[in-house]
Amino acid sequence: MVLRTVEDYKQGLRDNREVWILGEKVKDVTTHPMLRVGVETAAVDYEMAEDPKYRDLAVAKHPETGEPISRHYYLPKNAEDLLKRHELIVTATRLGDGVIPFTKDVAGDCLNAVMVTAQVMGKEENLERITEYYEYVRKKDLSVACGMTDVKGNRSLHPSSPEQTHPDFYVRVVDQNDEGITVRGAKIHITASAYSDDILVLPCRAMREDDKDYAVCFAVPANSKGLKHIMHPLRYQQSPLEFPVDEPIRMHTEALLVFDDVFIPWERVFLCGEWQHAGSLAYNFSFFHRHTASCYRIALTELQLGMAQAIAEYNGIDRISHVREKITNMIIYLEMLKSLAKASCSDPVMHSGVAVPNPIISNISKYHFAENYHNFVKWVQDLCGGILVTAPTYQDYQNPELKDYIDKYLGGRKGIPTEHRLRMLQLIRIWLASDIGGGVEVLALHGEGSLQAQRMIIYGEYQNQLQEYKERAKKVAGIK
Amino acid sequence: MVLRTVEDYKQGLRDNREVWILGEKVKDVTTHPMLRVGVETAAVDYEMAEDPKYRDLAVAKHPETGEPISRHYYLPKNAEDLLKRHELIVTATRLGDGVIPFTKDVAGDCLNAVMVTAQVMGKEENLERITEYYEYVRKKDLSVACGMTDVKGNRSLHPSSPEQTHPDFYVRVVDQNDEGITVRGAKIHITASAYSDDILVLPCRAMREDDKDYAVCFAVPANSKGLKHIMHPLRYQQSPLEFPVDEPIRMHTEALLVFDDVFIPWERVFLCGEWQHAGSLAYNFSFFHRHTASCYRIALTELQLGMAQAIAEYNGIDRISHVREKITNMIIYLEMLKSLAKASCSDPVMHSGVAVPNPIISNISKYHFAENYHNFVKWVQDLCGGILVTAPTYQDYQNPELKDYIDKYLGGRKGIPTEHRLRMLQLIRIWLASDIGGGVEVLALHGEGSLQAQRMIIYGEYQNQLQEYKERAKKVAGIK
Amino acid sequence: MVLRTVEDYKQGLRDNREVWILGEKVKDVTTHPMLRVGVETAAVDYEMAEDPKYRDLAVAKHPETGEPISRHYYLPKNAEDLLKRHELIVTATRLGDGVIPFTKDVAGDCLNAVMVTAQVMGKEENLERITEYYEYVRKKDLSVACGMTDVKGNRSLHPSSPEQTHPDFYVRVVDQNDEGITVRGAKIHITASAYSDDILVLPCRAMREDDKDYAVCFAVPANSKGLKHIMHPLRYQQSPLEFPVDEPIRMHTEALLVFDDVFIPWERVFLCGEWQHAGSLAYNFSFFHRHTASCYRIALTELQLGMAQAIAEYNGIDRISHVREKITNMIIYLEMLKSLAKASCSDPVMHSGVAVPNPIISNISKYHFAENYHNFVKWVQDLCGGILVTAPTYQDYQNPELKDYIDKYLGGRKGIPTEHRLRMLQLIRIWLASDIGGGVEVLALHGEGSLQAQRMIIYGEYQNQLQEYKERAKKVAGIK
Amino acid sequence: MVLRTVEDYKQGLRDNREVWILGEKVKDVTTHPMLRVGVETAAVDYEMAEDPKYRDLAVAKHPETGEPISRHYYLPKNAEDLLKRHELIVTATRLGDGVIPFTKDVAGDCLNAVMVTAQVMGKEENLERITEYYEYVRKKDLSVACGMTDVKGNRSLHPSSPEQTHPDFYVRVVDQNDEGITVRGAKIHITASAYSDDILVLPCRAMREDDKDYAVCFAVPANSKGLKHIMHPLRYQQSPLEFPVDEPIRMHTEALLVFDDVFIPWERVFLCGEWQHAGSLAYNFSFFHRHTASCYRIALTELQLGMAQAIAEYNGIDRISHVREKITNMIIYLEMLKSLAKASCSDPVMHSGVAVPNPIISNISKYHFAENYHNFVKWVQDLCGGILVTAPTYQDYQNPELKDYIDKYLGGRKGIPTEHRLRMLQLIRIWLASDIGGGVEVLALHGEGSLQAQRMIIYGEYQNQLQEYKERAKKVAGIK
Repeated sequence: MVLRTVEDYKQGLRDNREVWILGEKVKDVTTHPMLRVGVETAAVDYEMAEDPKYRDLAVAKHPETGEPISRHYYLPKNAEDLLKRHELIVTATRLGDGVIPFTKDVAGDCLNAVMVTAQVMGKEENLERITEYYEYVRKKDLSVACGMTDVKGNRSLHPSSPEQTHPDFYVRVVDQNDEGITVRGAKIHITASAYSDDILVLPCRAMREDDKDYAVCFAVPANSKGLKHIMHPLRYQQSPLEFPVDEPIRMHTEALLVFDDVFIPWERVFLCGEWQHAGSLAYNFSFFHRHTASCYRIALTELQLGMAQAIAEYNGIDRISHVREKITNMIIYLEMLKSLAKASCSDPVMHSGVAVPNPIISNISKYHFAENYHNFVKWVQDLCGGILVTAPTYQDYQNPELKDYIDKYLGGRKGIPTEHRLRMLQLIRIWLASDIGGGVEVLALHGEGSLQAQRMIIYGEYQNQLQEYKERAKKVAGIK
Repeated sequence: MVLRTVEDYKQGLRDNREVWILGEKVKDVTTHPMLRVGVETAAVDYEMAEDPKYRDLAVAKHPETGEPISRHYYLPKNAEDLLKRHELIVTATRLGDGVIPFTKDVAGDCLNAVMVTAQVMGKEENLERITEYYEYVRKKDLSVACGMTDVKGNRSLHPSSPEQTHPDFYVRVVDQNDEGITVRGAKIHITASAYSDDILVLPCRAMREDDKDYAVCFAVPANSKGLKHIMHPLRYQQSPLEFPVDEPIRMHTEALLVFDDVFIPWERVFLCGEWQHAGSLAYNFSFFHRHTASCYRIALTELQLGMAQAIAEYNGIDRISHVREKITNMIIYLEMLKSLAKASCSDPVMHSGVAVPNPIISNISKYHFAENYHNFVKWVQDLCGGILVTAPTYQDYQNPELKDYIDKYLGGRKGIPTEHRLRMLQLIRIWLASDIGGGVEVLALHGEGSLQAQRMIIYGEYQNQLQEYKERAKKVAGIK
Repeated sequence: MVLRTVEDYKQGLRDNREVWILGEKVKDVTTHPMLRVGVETAAVDYEMAEDPKYRDLAVAKHPETGEPISRHYYLPKNAEDLLKRHELIVTATRLGDGVIPFTKDVAGDCLNAVMVTAQVMGKEENLERITEYYEYVRKKDLSVACGMTDVKGNRSLHPSSPEQTHPDFYVRVVDQNDEGITVRGAKIHITASAYSDDILVLPCRAMREDDKDYAVCFAVPANSKGLKHIMHPLRYQQSPLEFPVDEPIRMHTEALLVFDDVFIPWERVFLCGEWQHAGSLAYNFSFFHRHTASCYRIALTELQLGMAQAIAEYNGIDRISHVREKITNMIIYLEMLKSLAKASCSDPVMHSGVAVPNPIISNISKYHFAENYHNFVKWVQDLCGGILVTAPTYQDYQNPELKDYIDKYLGGRKGIPTEHRLRMLQLIRIWLASDIGGGVEVLALHGEGSLQAQRMIIYGEYQNQLQEYKERAKKVAGIK
Repeated sequence: MVLRTVEDYKQGLRDNREVWILGEKVKDVTTHPMLRVGVETAAVDYEMAEDPKYRDLAVAKHPETGEPISRHYYLPKNAEDLLKRHELIVTATRLGDGVIPFTKDVAGDCLNAVMVTAQVMGKEENLERITEYYEYVRKKDLSVACGMTDVKGNRSLHPSSPEQTHPDFYVRVVDQNDEGITVRGAKIHITASAYSDDILVLPCRAMREDDKDYAVCFAVPANSKGLKHIMHPLRYQQSPLEFPVDEPIRMHTEALLVFDDVFIPWERVFLCGEWQHAGSLAYNFSFFHRHTASCYRIALTELQLGMAQAIAEYNGIDRISHVREKITNMIIYLEMLKSLAKASCSDPVMHSGVAVPNPIISNISKYHFAENYHNFVKWVQDLCGGILVTAPTYQDYQNPELKDYIDKYLGGRKGIPTEHRLRMLQLIRIWLASDIGGGVEVLALHGEGSLQAQRMIIYGEYQNQLQEYKERAKKVAGIK
């Protein structure tokens, strides 16, 4: 078992996959100017394994053979394993300047969830298939995107509801034979699918018996016949309006992933009709994935807090009481997130020997950062002043007739070059007041499931404790 | 006295003003592809006066001559006048699809504030000058931008503080003679200056005696020698990624306005060294201007609430309880704003016969919409789903190989064409998850003064009531 | 028509009504040590009419005869009438040191609601009856308690649901004949019923056809046979632990009001079986009543803000930034309430010539003060310090061995006698950290309907506007 | 070394201490009807050590001798020790039905803080004294109250400020000789001092050089000459208005503790004039103590959440969406608290070998529960309905003429006896809508330091991280 290099990873993506962007077909995702950015960002996971500084963190020993495998593909057995995984994702996102590499970390979330569900479900066949696939991913050191969210149609209706315009709003099995199954439908918001090796497809909700054609989970190569990736465009280069920076641009993009009658051989099918397990598969994924989300948010929030402190200093307001209060609010926001994210690892739930991040805490953790993120944005914007969105551009700055005026008049605290102030404002504008900023707001809300999805699980998983506390209250109230 | 037409207004802007954008000098602001958008938006105020449907609202009678004047230039004498002005701004912003025309409404805020201050200050000469200038603006039916916010440098320091890098962070008088004064400095965030006839410059804060060179207020033609408008670029056309719409794009842009030793004749100088009145001039402006801001926010918020309700219906979720709760939150947000904005008119403070919007309420009104706007954004984004930022583009939609997939899979509630859903998402994305969206967030916070500026005034203006209520509490407590 | 004096009012209460408190029957409510406090508080409405200082406010002219009537019984015809009523209630509550007199003001809420509903319902008979009763109340200058909230049983079930333990959880008609109807059931939280002349009973919710026995509205003398008032005990005297004050104690108490087959003659029956109108009757009451609640909250909040400012000064912290921020929060809370309460009068809805406080705004107004009251409590408690609940008692203070220590050590800002500080803390403790304080918190939430009740009406009444704004958004989005 | 029994503990309190309550001197605190309640509550710590079920948790081994000592007096060396201590306090508070025993747990907070400071300070003499005293407390198995908060006078002024009315608002050294020091002043809010063996007195803030007489820390027997405990009265028995319960009443009371020139021998003086260490001593205490507070809040909040769930079920509303949302809010509140409290143990700061709960997290933990407690109260009250404060009393219920009406009409969900509903409401009323409820609100805010105190430390302790994150932001912004 040998871990792949960045170059191996890129080479693997040149496989005639059907990828569209801006209405045009993409020849090579590794060279397309937009998609390249995502490829480079995903590559951070491969880079870390090659870098002696991070190798111990990024690489684990295969539990049986002891061979090196990506730590993302090490099935966690206890709190310590989860905390290591936690550290890996936080570190990778710091290296990605606030953007998570994505293709191995979320792959781990999926694979672990399918494993747990297979064990709980107790079907020998399915367990063998996922075990074998898990081993295959380890051995080939693959990147795997997670195909979770269906396009849904009318969101109030069940997958099989006859009131839907058509029956394909959730991915479903339309045919099956001895070789395998054929699936149809579309998944949306599929981050990095265009530059992953495989797609692991999961149901995104609990199902009822009449939804059983929709209770399907499988893995599929990204270049499969009938599989179309329609990618959302993304910022891939600096604007000429912006000060140039040395740091690479880091970003991901999402696909509308159309399954136009795609064939899946049985050895890659992990759920097919077992509707009773669709919900728990989706939930198990969410417990891992919401913890993963907390990890990358930690690294991103640290960076954003740094921006806030920097601009407060540059503006000369860092000693003003309301400014300190806002910085304090941000510290509390960040440190609560850190405590919750760690606590979800420290207090895992064990399922058939797998340590799953605590369901209640990992959901609260994600809920916390999402519910309060818009206020965080407000606090940062507040410290910048209106110049955040009215500042002259780098093009103005390059004009010698204007440069001196800008240098003179847009200075802040003595000793801070005006250019530093403008650069910091630019960074904040990109992250917190642009299309990317809007995207990050929406990502907070909808990435890893909506606020209401978290609340539903928190309440649902808490029923035993509620009754226990109720009994305690009854005793104190003298109710016998 | 004859009101100008839209064409008159445009013609007036072709006067060799020194306007820069993206590092280049602009020949004609009325035809420049970016600035034109602002010109057309500002023109709404002129259009209304020509339109029989709105003429009664847009045009008032000169208090002495009875001739028609813009209602924006009618000095309010009572609550009713303020309510009419309120209705005018709300209506104009509705016609501007959520964008206020700006050049006459804010002009009114300034002119009224200077008038009130002149009357309170009691210097005959200054009062005459502003009265004459007010009359001149009415007669010529001018558009006037408001030059308020200085670039400030270190924001914790006073204008004249020797700790500032240089003395020009606030506009100041550098010379004066029998003819007039010479001013130097820069104002920032000056909306619409490039397409206004005049700029009315005000101090932006209270001053101390040693700041007296900075206590200066004057009017100046936008094409004056030494006056440079460095404009922020703005969205001026639809992207090819977007579904085309018939509505004109409405938008404004802000200038960094450099006064490179600009000469102002005495008849246009309304404050010069009277440092004791700098603060009250700034405050009086803010009482009018924060009410104006509330008016345009009403129209904008109505539109945004409409988007939220539409997308909830299109997604098939408008009957779900948490969705109704979020819609209810938005209704409360909007109706509180409406009540506060009207109450600030109904309960004005009278200064020398001028009705000033209630200082406490107009500040609370602005504070309310700004403090809570980011949550409003969150609620709307929440109802959209992640598709808000991952939807395929219009370019994808135009490709026949993709269109059918998009139409099929991105449908929502039965009966709603997919294109409608995508168009509504596009509108929401522009307003609430893009650079414009970020701009509107920042505008909420910093336009018309920061949250802390409002809180400071609310507290400061409330001292008498605080003592009155305290005395009542003492009586009830038995304290004699 | 002659308005009654306080003595007349008291005399009217000595009528053998069946009132219980602490498990014992009350002989005379006007002399019972607990109930007397409520009687004296209610009497403020009668006192004002006798006091030349308030007579113009408290007394109106009968719309037809011009004779003097209580302004509470003047059916409002326009915004101005509502604003007068507003001023009356605010003033009366100020005179009651934060406690509303209650028996005429809420009577007005009820009577107006029944009038409006009768007119909308269009049944001649019912309209005549309520008109005659309204006239009777005016002429006799009665106090009338409002019997609104049913005991409800399982709150998720309809009145007539067979799943309820018994059919009497909502007041219902159990028999009827030529003379009148017989009603059974119980109303709860009926403020001041024990010291009102009549009870006006209303349904508390919308009903379905099978609930029609529960759709009943009538007036009944408080001493009717079968009518039992089981009163909650209340604070009626100072504790020996407290510093004595001169101000009378003001307070009300609520009844569990049992209708043990009470007979009502037809001329006092205003709704009987018209289940379609039960909801709108309840709603119309709520529009008036939630506005009334806002009025008394204004006076109470002014007093509480006064306490906060006083203790901040006494503790020497009123200049500290976080303290000013908290005071500013309280100002915003209070002034928003004032603006909303007035706006609900300024923008009434007209029903058959009656001006009803704006449904949306009066609900938002009540919602605002209730939703945020617990934070208001927090801010006040925060300014006090822990001494709010650990201070030595007046009994300690009277002991000469302890007094000097207390005087020395519990002093605050120089120049403020320690006794003043302790008295102010005592007043705050009573209102904001005692059983009364808890009662006021619960009153905010549940008095005049729960938070959810307000939200439901706000959303329900807003359907037209929602659709209007949606259409506007569609136009801008290019949806045809 | 033998741990004391409950009886030993009580016997130790009969020592002629000077305790006042309601203006009268107390003969024996263990039998005084009010103070007894506190004694019994404190005794839980002694009971646990005697109870085989809890002995392993309550008793630790002396680090050197291996003899049994109270775990509260085991100096924590690592995260695990802190987590054990955490579990002990949570468990003890559960046994106390939501009330922490207090006299050993907070004693541990103090002793640990003095130990840490002595080690950091590096004065051999002081370290010996506290080490010896720590050993003495262990050996005698004492209860020790913590004398922290000074009465302060004008809270904006320093202890030694000449603007204070007198110099004794903070406890200070007024004399010293070879034997020891004499102290004067008063401490306030001193929980359980009247039934503790010793008082350990600490400074409550950072000091300046001119405050050095106030930089004093010492231990003193509770019955020392000149030491006066003026206790706040407390609820010590059930009211006749309440349903009787079997559970003992648990409660504490606070003293105003006057030091009327009390002599302290040198061996009990741990700080005297070392003003530079006053602040860090206070802070170190707060890190332990705010964690302790989080522990007891966990147990209390569990109980309150149990009440909320119970009453929601009894009222038949537990399936209604807004009710589930409120329950979910409470779960999030509680589980965030649990995660933070544990995280502050898992990630301790080491000082000279002592594991101190993480300063930032323990402060955020306390801040979290305090800042949001009033909303928690609101949610619980909301689920109860107004009956929470208007329910008939137990006295009514005992009257056969009323009992049947009450049983009939105040029933809730079918199958739940009315008495159960009334009992649960009674328990909620006591904890959340009474003088005790108000006390708990104030305790949340001011116990263990005010909200602002926590914010100040959070910000202050975060300076290194702020700079680190700022540097990261600068790098990404391209600032060199």
